[in-house]
Amino acid sequence: MGRSASVGFVLFDGFEVLDVFGPLELLGQVSDRFEIQLIGPVAGPVTSAQGPQVIADRAYADAPPCDIVLVPGGPGTRRLVDDERFLAWLRGWASKAKYVTSVCTGSGVLAAAGLLDGYGATSNKRAFGWASSQGPGVDWIPKARWVEDRNRWTSSGVSAGMDMALALIAHLHSEELALQTADAVEYEWHRDPNWDPFAAKNGLAPD
Amino acid sequence: MGRSASVGFVLFDGFEVLDVFGPLELLGQVSDRFEIQLIGPVAGPVTSAQGPQVIADRAYADAPPCDIVLVPGGPGTRRLVDDERFLAWLRGWASKAKYVTSVCTGSGVLAAAGLLDGYGATSNKRAFGWASSQGPGVDWIPKARWVEDRNRWTSSGVSAGMDMALALIAHLHSEELALQTADAVEYEWHRDPNWDPFAAKNGLAPD
Repeated sequence: MGRSASVGFVLFDGFEVLDVFGPLELLGQVSDRFEIQLIGPVAGPVTSAQGPQVIADRAYADAPPCDIVLVPGGPGTRRLVDDERFLAWLRGWASKAKYVTSVCTGSGVLAAAGLLDGYGATSNKRAFGWASSQGPGVDWIPKARWVEDRNRWTSSGVSAGMDMALALIAHLHSEELALQTADAVEYEWHRDPNWDPFAAKNGLAPD
Repeated sequence: MGRSASVGFVLFDGFEVLDVFGPLELLGQVSDRFEIQLIGPVAGPVTSAQGPQVIADRAYADAPPCDIVLVPGGPGTRRLVDDERFLAWLRGWASKAKYVTSVCTGSGVLAAAGLLDGYGATSNKRAFGWASSQGPGVDWIPKARWVEDRNRWTSSGVSAGMDMALALIAHLHSEELALQTADAVEYEWHRDPNWDPFAAKNGLAPD
């Protein structure tokens, strides 16, 4: 991508703050390459799982097409997977994006919208049973920090979104830019998508 | 601390999102132990360095006393260190807290308010010269993930705030609770406050 890529973060009541602001911090470090948009039920405040409210730039109904879509996790996903109107919107809007990504239980939402059928994907280790039940046509991979399958990128729980975001910077630009970005925020990037000690801790993989 | 501890995050225009939402995610995981407050110039939206707006619960002038104060970094700190009115408020409000903490260049702000005089402290490695120039009476420690000196806890750049937040949970409650919290968000906690590869990368310490 030569020009800057638009990244649409999908907010909803009960989103997990680090699922959004981890990747947003990293992509925001290379602000000449990524343009961030927050999309919410309506334009205005959206309440996170942790309490703080964040202002959505645009309503779902008015969301411009984005190059990259990111769906975070959080307790609010439990409700979204039964919200047919939301799922229909997400299916239509996200299917126009170049990359469809998620953090944590956000992959359960993508699966419920049918956006992961025929793709490999992962999710939060503590909610893996729930997430994987949202998409029987998905190849669920329990042990992975993140999974890249063509243009569907899904990461494991919460902080894993930061490692996936750096991998996306490397994929779209260069490994060097991703390493510079990690250094700028003094973050130790887990560069290996198969690094996942949390799968075994949750009985999802042999240690 | 038996009862839940109130944690006041100081927001300002140009705060760094991960400096706030990294620690906030972790403390929020143990929501029965920590009660989060966002304090801003006025109650209402505050614009982060990365663009998104977050809603402050209370204005500086109306901030209730908090058990733990956290000052994040970000480009907005450059202006705050010359804002005598802000510094006078911070000095008065934070000096009543049981713990005064910072992430990244937030330690420059604490230093400018005189809150670190006679204490050891660290800061972001890329802005170490700037931060340390804000407090000649501070014992600045270049190589440290975070520094605990009595009730002043300061961390290095951006993502280091998450390691400090977990150390604070361990200090106030137990190492076990901190490890459980890290596991819940699938985060690999750097438990050693002396772990800091970024000091050498920025010419601040022998490798």
